[in-house]
Amino acid sequence: MALLVQKYGGTSVGSIERIDAVAEKVSKFRDNGDDVVVVVSAMSGETNRLTMLAQEIMEQPTPREMDVLLSTGEQVTIALLCMALEKRGYGAHSFTGGQVRILTDNSHTKARIREIDNTRMHAQLEQGNVVVVAGFQGVDDNGNITTLGRGGSDTTAVALAAALEADECQIYTDVKGVYTTDPRVVEDAKLLETITFEEMLELASLGAKVLQIRSVEFAGKYKVPLRVLSTFEEGSGTLITLEEETDMEDPAIAGIAFERDEAKLTVAGVPDVPGIAYKVIGPVSDAGIEVDVIVQNVAADGSNDITFTVKRAESDRAKEILDTVATSLQAQEVILDKKICKVSLVGVGMRSHAGIASKMFKALADESINIEIITTSEIKISVVIEEKYLELAVRALHSAFELGETESEKVSE
Amino acid sequence: MALLVQKYGGTSVGSIERIDAVAEKVSKFRDNGDDVVVVVSAMSGETNRLTMLAQEIMEQPTPREMDVLLSTGEQVTIALLCMALEKRGYGAHSFTGGQVRILTDNSHTKARIREIDNTRMHAQLEQGNVVVVAGFQGVDDNGNITTLGRGGSDTTAVALAAALEADECQIYTDVKGVYTTDPRVVEDAKLLETITFEEMLELASLGAKVLQIRSVEFAGKYKVPLRVLSTFEEGSGTLITLEEETDMEDPAIAGIAFERDEAKLTVAGVPDVPGIAYKVIGPVSDAGIEVDVIVQNVAADGSNDITFTVKRAESDRAKEILDTVATSLQAQEVILDKKICKVSLVGVGMRSHAGIASKMFKALADESINIEIITTSEIKISVVIEEKYLELAVRALHSAFELGETESEKVSE
Repeated sequence: MALLVQKYGGTSVGSIERIDAVAEKVSKFRDNGDDVVVVVSAMSGETNRLTMLAQEIMEQPTPREMDVLLSTGEQVTIALLCMALEKRGYGAHSFTGGQVRILTDNSHTKARIREIDNTRMHAQLEQGNVVVVAGFQGVDDNGNITTLGRGGSDTTAVALAAALEADECQIYTDVKGVYTTDPRVVEDAKLLETITFEEMLELASLGAKVLQIRSVEFAGKYKVPLRVLSTFEEGSGTLITLEEETDMEDPAIAGIAFERDEAKLTVAGVPDVPGIAYKVIGPVSDAGIEVDVIVQNVAADGSNDITFTVKRAESDRAKEILDTVATSLQAQEVILDKKICKVSLVGVGMRSHAGIASKMFKALADESINIEIITTSEIKISVVIEEKYLELAVRALHSAFELGETESEKVSE
Repeated sequence: MALLVQKYGGTSVGSIERIDAVAEKVSKFRDNGDDVVVVVSAMSGETNRLTMLAQEIMEQPTPREMDVLLSTGEQVTIALLCMALEKRGYGAHSFTGGQVRILTDNSHTKARIREIDNTRMHAQLEQGNVVVVAGFQGVDDNGNITTLGRGGSDTTAVALAAALEADECQIYTDVKGVYTTDPRVVEDAKLLETITFEEMLELASLGAKVLQIRSVEFAGKYKVPLRVLSTFEEGSGTLITLEEETDMEDPAIAGIAFERDEAKLTVAGVPDVPGIAYKVIGPVSDAGIEVDVIVQNVAADGSNDITFTVKRAESDRAKEILDTVATSLQAQEVILDKKICKVSLVGVGMRSHAGIASKMFKALADESINIEIITTSEIKISVVIEEKYLELAVRALHSAFELGETESEKVSE
């Protein structure tokens, strides 16, 4: 007997058969006595179809009307899911974002939730109905339809769970949960039973894209217990917890993330004067290019290099900008390396465990993998290495930190 | 400089190209200084697509959720039309039924409009924007989405015109307006410049299905000048007026309507006692079969026949019911004739012109067409004849009453 908010994404509701399967799944929770609020996305493909219709008219469609258009996608799904529940004899009641009402600011296509009224949802739950809410959408103060941007349905689910003080927010996806690393790279990657919000944030932003990052931040802020699990397979998934597990035997490392599509840019021989980093990075940022890892190192001989990474697709554009910058700064040269990747160890346990970094560097050295850049944060160590070593590095680290199914079982015996 | 409400149906907005063409049309009225409120239907085919999705889940989908589902169709169109207008540099602002707000009762899938708030529309018009409203939909007192039933967009347009006290409500369709009769039957059928509401009601219900009948009633009640015209061709269409034209030279007849899909049922030899008509017709009505023309005639010898017409598709079911009724009433027999049709003369001028009926009967007699049933109302005379004579009868009447383009020109010379 719990109050659950469950979110099913576009793939989970991608056809009438799948909507029927979701209804079946939800009905079992009702049978168990749970109160259920379901948040759904548009059927997979629908948002793209609508976007293409708009773009046939104009390349940059009016944001306000784009929201009116796109919000129909989720509205279709809530109606169909309610029908599928009612067919099974379960009471169900749909709400659009505006009907709930999910109040947002007026930044069309990327609105942020301000407030949620839980009165209507509670009234329906008390009547024994399943509440089905359209994800991704809300209304502003003037009743204009807004959308939260792609993936916003996760945020809707977390926000509803916070507003309803739900016992758990369950995000159903096409993966079984959060793994120690990508199972396609490391065969014995282990499904994590729990992970902290901080770790999840680092893993999500580093490429293990299970959850929309904003929804994780939101859940952390409002202390909503968040669970990631599979729509299609059994299993209890991964619970994202507020607190680091207190068990001291727990491994210090939660998982290994990696990013393939990066490129490294070095501006060599820039003057070692205050403000130089801004002069180099500023023009790149201003061009809308996202800069990731940044390192600056003044050598003993006074020569100064600034190195940073960007998305590979944007690296040529960044290079062009830097060439101009380099000339004006009388820098030595600009070097672009597209064949790099980034591998990161993530874990809140790092804080209290010494030697994680050295263990990491040793594991890579044992495989003769050269580290080009190192950056660290409280709960993360990232290295930039040659792209061809990616799989080897991830496997070596996974094994060195005993993250695998088998290894961890050995340890706990 | 006028305030116009324009309604474009599903065919008129059936593709991106057509939505673009509608935007082009609307922009010309703006250039002319008119304020324009546009009501649109779902893109043709969309309502059927959504209905089929629902029926894949359940045969009789929940009405409340059906409305949530179907209302997305018009919502897509309002967004796309606004984009097409903005692309051309015209300000545009979309409203769903709920946003306007169009308040209805809570009869899902067949709601009736109770009240319309014109504040938001006026505010947008004052800012120089084209207002684009989703037809066919509204909200009830509790904010539930309702729909007005198929064809409800016409009703939305008329209701908005009434609420805004618009100068004219223009219904754009795929015909040029209202003709004296079906141009496919009579080649020189003439486009009427004006027609009265009463005549339009009779013509619409008799088969010239240009406008949804509810919207015509609505327009008559609120004295909204209503014009039917073509989306695709130039022309000023047909204006539906409140008052009968006062010009005495005007023809007494507005047009000729006909209905092909009827069947005639006669219960012969029923007792001539009070209540007998109810005993015969009652069970047929109770079975949900719509009864059209009814005639009863007691012969001099005391024998009594009751004859009526129903839709041909329902005639076998009606016959079965009547067979049972006939047995219990000890009636002589039940005769079903499927090969009939109905032809009607319509015109408010009938009231003041004698001899219309006899002229009609003579015209049919001249062609040796036997009349099986005659019924009359204030502004209509209908005859039931053998189906094979339909075209002949319509042409003969069209010519006898000089309704054709050429004939009427001859007369006015």
